[in-house]
Parts: sequence; structure tokens; C-alpha cells
Amino acid sequence: MATENKVRFGIIGFGNQGSMYAKFITDGMVPSMDLVAIADIDPAKLTQIEETYPQVQRFDDYKAIIDSGEVDAIITTVPHYLHPEIATYALSKGIHVLNEKPAGVYTKHVKALNEYAKTVDATYAIMFNQRNNPLYQKLKTILDNKEIGDIRRVNWIITTWWRPQAYYDQSAWRATWGGEGGGVLVNQAPHQLDLIQWLTGVPEKVVSRVQYGYQRDIAVEDQVHAIFEYENGATGVFVTSTNEIVGSDRLEIVGDAGKIIVDDSAVATIYRMKESETDINKNMDVDGVRKLMTGQLAFEELYDKEVIQEENVWGLQHSGVLENFAQHILNGTPLIADGQEGINGVRLANAIHLSSWTGEKVSIPEFDDDQYLDLLNQHITDEGKFDTRK
Amino acid sequence: MATENKVRFGIIGFGNQGSMYAKFITDGMVPSMDLVAIADIDPAKLTQIEETYPQVQRFDDYKAIIDSGEVDAIITTVPHYLHPEIATYALSKGIHVLNEKPAGVYTKHVKALNEYAKTVDATYAIMFNQRNNPLYQKLKTILDNKEIGDIRRVNWIITTWWRPQAYYDQSAWRATWGGEGGGVLVNQAPHQLDLIQWLTGVPEKVVSRVQYGYQRDIAVEDQVHAIFEYENGATGVFVTSTNEIVGSDRLEIVGDAGKIIVDDSAVATIYRMKESETDINKNMDVDGVRKLMTGQLAFEELYDKEVIQEENVWGLQHSGVLENFAQHILNGTPLIADGQEGINGVRLANAIHLSSWTGEKVSIPEFDDDQYLDLLNQHITDEGKFDTRK
Repeated sequence: MATENKVRFGIIGFGNQGSMYAKFITDGMVPSMDLVAIADIDPAKLTQIEETYPQVQRFDDYKAIIDSGEVDAIITTVPHYLHPEIATYALSKGIHVLNEKPAGVYTKHVKALNEYAKTVDATYAIMFNQRNNPLYQKLKTILDNKEIGDIRRVNWIITTWWRPQAYYDQSAWRATWGGEGGGVLVNQAPHQLDLIQWLTGVPEKVVSRVQYGYQRDIAVEDQVHAIFEYENGATGVFVTSTNEIVGSDRLEIVGDAGKIIVDDSAVATIYRMKESETDINKNMDVDGVRKLMTGQLAFEELYDKEVIQEENVWGLQHSGVLENFAQHILNGTPLIADGQEGINGVRLANAIHLSSWTGEKVSIPEFDDDQYLDLLNQHITDEGKFDTRK
Repeated sequence: MATENKVRFGIIGFGNQGSMYAKFITDGMVPSMDLVAIADIDPAKLTQIEETYPQVQRFDDYKAIIDSGEVDAIITTVPHYLHPEIATYALSKGIHVLNEKPAGVYTKHVKALNEYAKTVDATYAIMFNQRNNPLYQKLKTILDNKEIGDIRRVNWIITTWWRPQAYYDQSAWRATWGGEGGGVLVNQAPHQLDLIQWLTGVPEKVVSRVQYGYQRDIAVEDQVHAIFEYENGATGVFVTSTNEIVGSDRLEIVGDAGKIIVDDSAVATIYRMKESETDINKNMDVDGVRKLMTGQLAFEELYDKEVIQEENVWGLQHSGVLENFAQHILNGTPLIADGQEGINGVRLANAIHLSSWTGEKVSIPEFDDDQYLDLLNQHITDEGKFDTRK
């Protein structure tokens, strides 16, 4: 299957992401992969590929590259609606798939892909590169070990996704309901929608305020506020937008036994309490209350503080996921992100849209895939530029 | 009216706040005031007053101190429901009133007080001491001058209001519907509910998730999440709780021309953009987009950054409001906080409760005072400890 213990890799789509991955692989950042083929439907892109990577085979059709016999595995760096379609086709041919995020645009589509992927032997993974940020890896361990106890409150403001009108105007499919299926929730924030549920669990209910075409001339959303309810009673807030030059990236996770604050996805301050808040509360007497009310309670003696800083080297997250995917195929190394998990972020994004459309609180466990697709199709029909979806 | 150019001041209620103000005045922190009388209904408190301030007159009834002829002005440091009742009585006797925050518990009550206060000559002010924080004063000027442009997004997480069960168990009225009228929204967060609307305007609509007795054995709320909608389309988030040992105090205000981040009500980072986001967006071409997407856009060249730090000296905020109130009475100095403005924070708190009770989005301009009072009374009746309100 693999030549010289390397996975023969094909990239489908030579846009921003596809060309970046091609460079990482040919620069030697992904030792267990050979880039052997690239596909794109755009003739100009094919010329560009030929000039940049003359040694690599070119295809103008995703089926052709998958059927070529040249590749063991592919990645789907194409508009989001195509992710499930291409992934399913590749898996049906025994080709391993690294799906681009989001796994798809609507839950019904992604669920069908997930069900199909369970029936085949080929690997199905997903490019959640931010899970490969060493900082988030450490926080995942801290949270899984319950070092800050049961979660009570989560708050992520992630507005560093600034995109100008000229970005949206680049392609006819961008920022449309029919071509892209959403805005910041579908294109930029899927990273954090995955991370927030990976770190603190899938919420149960969602209420949102979504602003469509707020600061951009687009049909889809460029500013989003959502409140999550978790099964244990905890509450989450998720804020994202594409219209802030001075963007925020601030994550707070509060537990019964501590707190984590992450700034700019680079610096985490971890507070570990010596005794849980539940116990401190239970044991505090009137004298403690008097101290509290006169500013004499030494809060800082109740916890230890640790600051973790990780350099976020550009490219290492993505190339690491590519290498992990190849290692999984070659040696069975556990995946950083199983493709099956892609549904969680898609369902969260769909629920946020749905709540804004219906004005209702939306249940995640009882999420109505058909209702969402119906309303999405209504938006596509009203837009009048693309066919509806099934 | 005033002796030796000083206001003869009476404190009604000798609890945490009342005793603190007594100390500030007798320590000479409020040069334009003489503390001449204190009232409390608790005989133990009267003994304590006699021991601490033998020179001060004592009263066991608020009407007696107001009617005594000894005081020019009073402050209402009593349970919140009594604020409008005592303030109205004092104003009716020509006595100047510094109302404690919140102005009252429910809008109908506060509106009646406001209407009455407009018909009398006596001064009606309110103890919004945090408006007297020099940091917030500066931010108010920056915002009023539109230095960061029109507001797009506001986010305040204020969870530094930790209160243990023993605090709630101190008095029978605390954390009850009938005795206090709410939890963190009525007792602790009114400061920030006032500041947020003072700084960035009164929101138009409110949606909330309010957690009643979440981490405390109380009937009222100890954790609150709300989303605000502003008239210009901006969105706000307000988060508060009383169950975090490692509390957060983080305010973000994003405008078209900049951003303000305030940490711990002490350090403000102000970003002023050289060109508005609207203009940067309009003028960015494909080359700019290419730079953005390859990480080469120098965001930091698009704004200037200033850090303002103000030492928050304990007591100066409160004593400053007391002195300002006295100076207003004596010399007509403009008030830091006119009592009329107390309605805004009360209405916000009521709207947050109402949204959680009805599950609906609540309009601020069309706020239904009677509906709120009806539902509050339902809670009081269900609780079965106190009489309903009118």
C-alpha cells in the first residue's frame, strides 16, 4: 500500500488550505507522506500546480484522483458542502480520508457519512489542527483528570477571525447559503466549536443571537452570540465574529475546584484550589463572612496558580495532524481527531443557526436534522443562487 | 439649613454599609458632612451605635429620624424593598436623599419614586459608587467622545461577588423573594448593571439564562447569563455569579474605531484605530486579502494602544459620592449619579429575571412593570415567608 513506509497522499482542492498542505509536505514537514497527486477543477490552478510541483500528478476531477490507483489517502480541501460527498466516495474505494473541517454543513449529511465510515476499513479522520496545539493538549489532560473539578461555567470569546468584504467577494460560493451554508460558524469558528466540546463536553441546549450581514454585505452571519446549557447545569457562552480588527481570543473554564483562563490560544493560567469551592462554602462560618465583607478574606491563599505558555509555531499544527494521520495508517497510532467526532461541531453550529431562526431554545440530543435542512433549504431558495440540498 | 457649611447627615440602617459610611464621615473623609444621627430598628445595633458614636443621636424608626429636625439629608442603607418607601417619605419632608443601590426591587416602585422626586425641591441622588472609580470616569469620557466609535459588542463577566451559604443565612430577608427580591442581580451586580448602561447605553432587548439556587441553598439566583440587544444592532453579554472563588472581572467594549478591555475594574487597555473598521474593510483589496490569509497582515499597525491603570483605594469611591452629594446640596455641584438614573439598572435586572421566567425575549422600552410585579408576587407567594408587594 505505502511506498517506503510512506503514505501516498492526494490533495483535492488547491486553494488556500490545499496549497498550504502541499508546501508542508514537499518541505519535509510530514515525513510519513509523499505528495503524489493534486486535483482541482480550475484550469488556472492546474497550471499553477504544474509550475510549482512538476513531479506531482494532476487531476481535474475528484473521482479521477481517487480512482487513479496513485493515492492511498486524500484530504478534502474544497467547499464545505463537498466534504461528505468526496469523503464518502473515497472511503467507498478504500481510500483513507482526512476530511477538512467542518465535516459538512448540515447534520443529516454528516451523519450519513459517519454511518457509512463505520462500515468500511479505511481510516476516516478530520483536520482539527487546533487540537494539536500543545496548549490545548495539556488543558484537555487537566480537564479530563478533573484537576479543576466539575465544570460550572465556560466562556469563549473568539473574534480574531477578521475577514473583509474583499475576502467574501473572492468566490461566488463564499458566504452564501447555497454555496457555503453559513458564515463564521461554518468557515472560521468550527475550530473553536470543536475545541469547546472536546474540552468541556457537548452542551444539551443552545440559545443564540446571530447577526446576518451585520457589518458585511453577505447573506450569512458575521457576528454570533450563543448561550449553552450543559447536562450538569453548567452554562457556556460562545461569541464569534469576523468584523473586529482588534480581535479577542479569551477562553474561561470555571470548575468546582479551579479555573482556566486561556489568552490568545497561547497562554493558559490555571488556578487549582486547595479545597473545592463546595467545601469552602460548606465550612465557612460567620467569622469568615465578616472577613469577606470587610475585605480581609485572603482569596489568593485558597488556590495555586500556574501559567503555561506554548509557542504556536505556524504550520506545526496542520503538519502534525497530517503526520498523525499517516502514522495511524502505517502503524495504528491513535488519531488526534477521529472523523466521527466532526458531527459535534457541525451540530453545535446548526443548533446556533436554528435557535436564531426559530427564536427557540434548541436541544442538542433531540436535534431535528430534517427541520434544520428544511430551513437551510428555505434560505437557499430565498437566495436563489444555488440548488437546495438533500 | 446646613451648619457651618456642612450637611447634617443621618444614616438609616446600621448594617455593613451604614456602619462603613459612619466611619468614613467620622474619620473626616467627607469634609462637607456632619454625621448627626443614625437610625436602626435593632436594639443591639442601637447599643453598638451608642458605644461607637456617643455624640450621634439615635432613632429606632426611619420616620422619627426624618421628622426630627436634626438632619438635612439621609441615606437608605436598609433592605432594598425599603429604599423607595423611605426615600419617598424623606423627600416629602424636604429632606435630601442619597438612595442606596438598587433604587428599588421592581420598576413600578422605582418609577413611582422617580415621578414623586420630580415634584419636590429636595435632592434625590443614588449611591452608584463605582461611577466614582476614576478608571470608569475616564472610560465614560472616551466612550462619550466616540473615541472607539459606535459600539458593536459589549461583554462583561463579573463573577468576583463570591458569597458563601453563611452569608445568605445571616438574615431572614436575605436571598428571599419577599425579603430581598432577588439574588446577585439585586444585591451585588447592580453596580455593574448601572455601569454597563451608563457606559454603553440602555439595551433594547434581553434574553437570559438565570440559575436559581444553583450552588447555594437559596430561592433566588446565584448565576446569571444574559444577552442584550442594543438599538444600533450591537450585542451585549452580561455574566455574574456568587459561587466563584477565583472570580472574573473582565469588560470588553468593541466599537467601530477601537476597543476597550478592562481587567479587575483597575486596568483598562484602550485600542484606538487609525482608520475605522468600516473604512479598513471598504478599502482592502485582493492583495490585502492575500496578506491576511497568509498571516502577513500587520494588524498591530492599524491601531494605537494605551494602558490606563488606576489605583482603587478602598473607601474613596463611597466617600467621594457622599462628599459630592453634600457639595451638590451646598453649592450645586453636579451629581455623580442622579437618583432618576437608578431605574435603568433595576429595569435591566427585572428584564433578566422576566426573560428567565417567561422563556421570552424581553423588551426594555416596552417593559411591562405590572407583569413583572405579578410574577414577583407569585414567587413571594410560593415562598410563603413574606407579604406580596404593590
